[in-house]
Amino acid sequence: MKMAALSAASGVPVPTIKFYLREGLLPRGDVTVPNQAEYSDSHVRRLRLIRALIEVGGITVAAAGQVLDAIDSELPVEHTFGVAQQSVSERIDPQDVPQHALDAVDAATPGWRVHPENPGRLTAARALLAFERAGQTDLRGWVERYAAAALQVAEADLDEVDARDGREAKAEIIVVGTALGDALFSGLRRAAQEHISAVRYLPTPDTEHP
Amino acid sequence: MKMAALSAASGVPVPTIKFYLREGLLPRGDVTVPNQAEYSDSHVRRLRLIRALIEVGGITVAAAGQVLDAIDSELPVEHTFGVAQQSVSERIDPQDVPQHALDAVDAATPGWRVHPENPGRLTAARALLAFERAGQTDLRGWVERYAAAALQVAEADLDEVDARDGREAKAEIIVVGTALGDALFSGLRRAAQEHISAVRYLPTPDTEHP
Repeated sequence: MKMAALSAASGVPVPTIKFYLREGLLPRGDVTVPNQAEYSDSHVRRLRLIRALIEVGGITVAAAGQVLDAIDSELPVEHTFGVAQQSVSERIDPQDVPQHALDAVDAATPGWRVHPENPGRLTAARALLAFERAGQTDLRGWVERYAAAALQVAEADLDEVDARDGREAKAEIIVVGTALGDALFSGLRRAAQEHISAVRYLPTPDTEHP
Repeated sequence: MKMAALSAASGVPVPTIKFYLREGLLPRGDVTVPNQAEYSDSHVRRLRLIRALIEVGGITVAAAGQVLDAIDSELPVEHTFGVAQQSVSERIDPQDVPQHALDAVDAATPGWRVHPENPGRLTAARALLAFERAGQTDLRGWVERYAAAALQVAEADLDEVDARDGREAKAEIIVVGTALGDALFSGLRRAAQEHISAVRYLPTPDTEHP
């Protein structure tokens, strides 16, 4: 397909496509006649992924390039996963997180095979530090229950990744899922709080209207 | 204690305490001699809660006033819970969320006793809409697993609230937990993703170093 058709198929405006070509995010098409290139379905898929990275994941063009390089590399998919996860996670300097907060995270996640610089480990430690500063301590049992729930969510995430065919589709769900999954869970958690609260403290609807 | 001692005990500067007194967030002390008031431990606790609301929960002084009114009311604790939860959640107009996205949330949370305007229900629906716009559909089974994990987290949250004595302490953990719990879970989820990914795709450390 020509550039105009690629734009129509992907929903990405022509000037934006040209920008991605110049930045090396999108491979050049096959030049058929001078000044005219032919694009394929793989370009449509790649454009969809670039949009997911930049518009949904909120990452920079440079970071998007790193994720795309990881996808195009011959390295195994868990490497792609790590790069995609890093790219959509806030970058925290491990030096900025005190050791006792990291220890608290590690104590609640015994046996987890996680690198010391995993962005989630640092995020969780920083959250525990904020709890501590707000006067909330002795949360170990509660944090352990959060960790157990996080394992279930991660199992669901990985199953979803495994169900996709091809590195591009896998990377796409990793990036979109990592970026949007937090908001989804946060919403469901608030709804669940109201539900559990109603179950515990309010008479059942059947009791109210016998 | 005098104003200076209240400031020292709470860590809140005197001008800020005077601002909270003027705004009605903090009850006046008992006037002992003219121009001198006596404050108690209940003022220290209240100041801690105000800081949690404003600094940790990121809510406005007006919204903090509503939460404090709910705490001081004779209404049951689940009412306080609802007010505190509303105050630290992003306000979304239900009109801005299309019905099919709300239906998708409801389908994944069958039997949940949740008001239609619950901020979490709206947040989750908006997240599903963003997935859809990013080309990710057919996520029902995955969303149901998120909902199951959210129920466990909410049970842990409510147990933590139940374990506190007094409306003030309960409201404090509700606000701090709602505001910071999202970041904690988000971090643990990313760490769990790396762990599950390692368990599935990488040889166990024992195999690597027999």
